[in-house]
Amino acid sequence: MTPTRQRAFSLHERLARDTLPIGDLVLSRALLMNDARFPWLVLVPRIDGIREVFELSASDQQRLIAEIVRCSERLKMLTGAAKMNIGALGNLVPQLHVHVVARSPGDGAWPGPVWGFGAPDPYAPAEGDAIIAQLRDALDI
Amino acid sequence: MTPTRQRAFSLHERLARDTLPIGDLVLSRALLMNDARFPWLVLVPRIDGIREVFELSASDQQRLIAEIVRCSERLKMLTGAAKMNIGALGNLVPQLHVHVVARSPGDGAWPGPVWGFGAPDPYAPAEGDAIIAQLRDALDI
Repeated sequence: MTPTRQRAFSLHERLARDTLPIGDLVLSRALLMNDARFPWLVLVPRIDGIREVFELSASDQQRLIAEIVRCSERLKMLTGAAKMNIGALGNLVPQLHVHVVARSPGDGAWPGPVWGFGAPDPYAPAEGDAIIAQLRDALDI
Repeated sequence: MTPTRQRAFSLHERLARDTLPIGDLVLSRALLMNDARFPWLVLVPRIDGIREVFELSASDQQRLIAEIVRCSERLKMLTGAAKMNIGALGNLVPQLHVHVVARSPGDGAWPGPVWGFGAPDPYAPAEGDAIIAQLRDALDI
């Protein structure tokens, strides 16, 4: 079997435009949604042509849940959020991607979902850089 | 370790009210959201006190992704949906539950999320019974 990191992968242009890169986990590219309203990660399995979780191999499905767990647990600790929201929708961007969002009663969309809610509020560059440094440390990447 | 099916479990009253029971998988109770607008399953790991995926044991995390995969693949086949949406939110109902929703460009919420969208349209009893029979067959439960 070809190791995960040698399979063909290019990030969908909309995901590239809407996010800031954090780094690569074993299976997924970890991205920060460029939206200061919510602490919001996106995991993209680094394999071209995958749209649904069930299209991943069984071992990659297990890697994916392990990476979701790692990101959600550490983002919750980092932010002190009340609840983590996890979602794989893909109605607009077909490339499989999983949202991991830290939610709290104070946020603007609470208790509704963040998807489709209002317009993103991009980070100031220094602010984005600082958060990414924190996330790399928290995620060991 | 206590086998999954012997651990304490009671379904949150709001999930009980909003859904129709399909049956039990190894880890999760499978429910049909009582909303004829969308083919919509809910999986609830049958362990009391769990709010986040990362609170499950590593083996139960793997069971959960396997059950999500099984439900989403079979519901997509059954419905011919364009895209499966998977979500674990829990901002309103703290008991961990995973939504598996079959989505298509024709549905009322497309391409937005189903959560928080309009009001549910309950199944007529015979319609609900027929869908549950189909789902039990498709899911082998």
